[in-house]
Amino acid sequence: MEDLIGSFEKKDNVSLGKMLKEVENQTPLSLEILKLSSFRKGKAHIIGVTGPPGSGKSTLVGKMCKKLATMDLRIGVVCVDPTSPFTKGALLGDRIRMQELAKLPNVFIKSLATRGNLGGLASSTADIVQVLDAYEMDVILIETVGVGQIEFDVLGVADTVLLVSVPGLGDTLQTLKAGIMEIADIYVINQADRPGADESVKDLNLMVKESGKREWSPPIHKTVATQDSGIDELIHDITAHKKYLERSGLWKEKRQTRNVTRLYSMIESLLAQRVEDHINREESLKAKVQDVMKGERDPYTTSHEIVDRLIAKHNSYQYGG
Amino acid sequence: MEDLIGSFEKKDNVSLGKMLKEVENQTPLSLEILKLSSFRKGKAHIIGVTGPPGSGKSTLVGKMCKKLATMDLRIGVVCVDPTSPFTKGALLGDRIRMQELAKLPNVFIKSLATRGNLGGLASSTADIVQVLDAYEMDVILIETVGVGQIEFDVLGVADTVLLVSVPGLGDTLQTLKAGIMEIADIYVINQADRPGADESVKDLNLMVKESGKREWSPPIHKTVATQDSGIDELIHDITAHKKYLERSGLWKEKRQTRNVTRLYSMIESLLAQRVEDHINREESLKAKVQDVMKGERDPYTTSHEIVDRLIAKHNSYQYGG
Repeated sequence: MEDLIGSFEKKDNVSLGKMLKEVENQTPLSLEILKLSSFRKGKAHIIGVTGPPGSGKSTLVGKMCKKLATMDLRIGVVCVDPTSPFTKGALLGDRIRMQELAKLPNVFIKSLATRGNLGGLASSTADIVQVLDAYEMDVILIETVGVGQIEFDVLGVADTVLLVSVPGLGDTLQTLKAGIMEIADIYVINQADRPGADESVKDLNLMVKESGKREWSPPIHKTVATQDSGIDELIHDITAHKKYLERSGLWKEKRQTRNVTRLYSMIESLLAQRVEDHINREESLKAKVQDVMKGERDPYTTSHEIVDRLIAKHNSYQYGG
Repeated sequence: MEDLIGSFEKKDNVSLGKMLKEVENQTPLSLEILKLSSFRKGKAHIIGVTGPPGSGKSTLVGKMCKKLATMDLRIGVVCVDPTSPFTKGALLGDRIRMQELAKLPNVFIKSLATRGNLGGLASSTADIVQVLDAYEMDVILIETVGVGQIEFDVLGVADTVLLVSVPGLGDTLQTLKAGIMEIADIYVINQADRPGADESVKDLNLMVKESGKREWSPPIHKTVATQDSGIDELIHDITAHKKYLERSGLWKEKRQTRNVTRLYSMIESLLAQRVEDHINREESLKAKVQDVMKGERDPYTTSHEIVDRLIAKHNSYQYGG
């Protein structure tokens, strides 16, 4: 325990790496780390970067990270993208670039293995981000892929969401329209030296306009990450978005919402465990669950029975205790 | 109540429409409808159809429906696709085709409005499907769009999942690879008269092979839905998949899993309500939640406190009751 507090004080990358491993593997120690880190919230700006595979997200994240590092900031990178070179299958060039990044003393990179289990990924990400925040990172970059439910859950942790696309992805844009529009704060057309970049910007502009007037109107950036082009301007707008969040009160609000969400999700998982224990201890309940499974008992009435058994209706007398 | 039972007996589309409206709007009556329908499970084959906007899913669903109708089957169609002409913004031609379909006595079409709230969509879909199943539909087609978390949740209800794509969507395929591969039972390349159809089939074939040997190897179909081309062959394979499910025991297993899932999600929402009530009644707990929100109390310890208060640890003596 004192070791843990010591680790938080030291802020070296080796103890951070050890702590994050505990948290990722949900060891018994991880709960202590999370408790401690929840009181040591820093002021990190949490930036989510999403987009389809092949849009060059990883290169972009790398370049942003490198630039931010020169600004004397402490940067954490969390990769939850199974298609990212940060997480696997990196080409030699990518791997060398990553190693370069990881060598910078003020940069810490953490890849989250999916191990085929996507369900817990969002809560793992939230845990990792919390520890990085407690380690007083200034910026935390989360890279995730624009696929399925993972994306929404993972991005729920971010203050600022970047949506990365490439020129000529007409169909992708249409898809995005239906799903992602609402959560993007900044659009990036990467590989903007490819034909069709200006059309993509025009399309996005139209989409932004169509989506109605908002207090923060998402800017659209053209970048060529491989050539470091457009990175400065992008970082400028990311900073502007942070200022907007602070000015509007959303910065504080998002943190408070996240705290409450965390509380309720903890309550939910504790209750799920209690229900499971309860059913396993009680033969009559086990039999009822079996009957529901076989379609011989309706789940609606049965759910009420189980909950009423678990929580005695008259337990109000205990409230004073 | 007797009216309800009467409705189930009659099986006319007018009472079905009324019931589904109750269920969709979660009126007090809806719970009775769901209880009753959970005992009246028919034998419907539940088919989910997904894919990006613009892939012609709606036309394909329409043509499949029309074909199935000629086979003297009762067909329910559920649309949870905000981009579908079934749900909104239909072109005149689409609208006429839909009206034609809806006129068939053995076809019932239900569109689920999203109303900006995607969260409850999956459970609404499951409810609607259950009632259609209780109405002894032979086939239930669920059309949904390949975007975000909705898709996975909605498709969880289906026995057979069709993934519809169009030629030349290289990027889409790459995206699919990361997310949808595992849940598709049948691939459809629609608009297969467009260039690149054979390449797309080849790409998909490779992906299927790469994904390893499975008991059911997903077939790949070329269709031109607007010209009724390939529909018969597709329906043939859908039937083959149903036979595979029955033979392997998965048919029964899926139904049992769905029943248990339903039970646990009902328990979960009842418990969430109890927790909410509990916190609202107790000033001291309210204050604790506020402290967690402000970051002054850790959510981990607090969640245990709240759950322990809600469920007296010594309530085991009540088990005999």
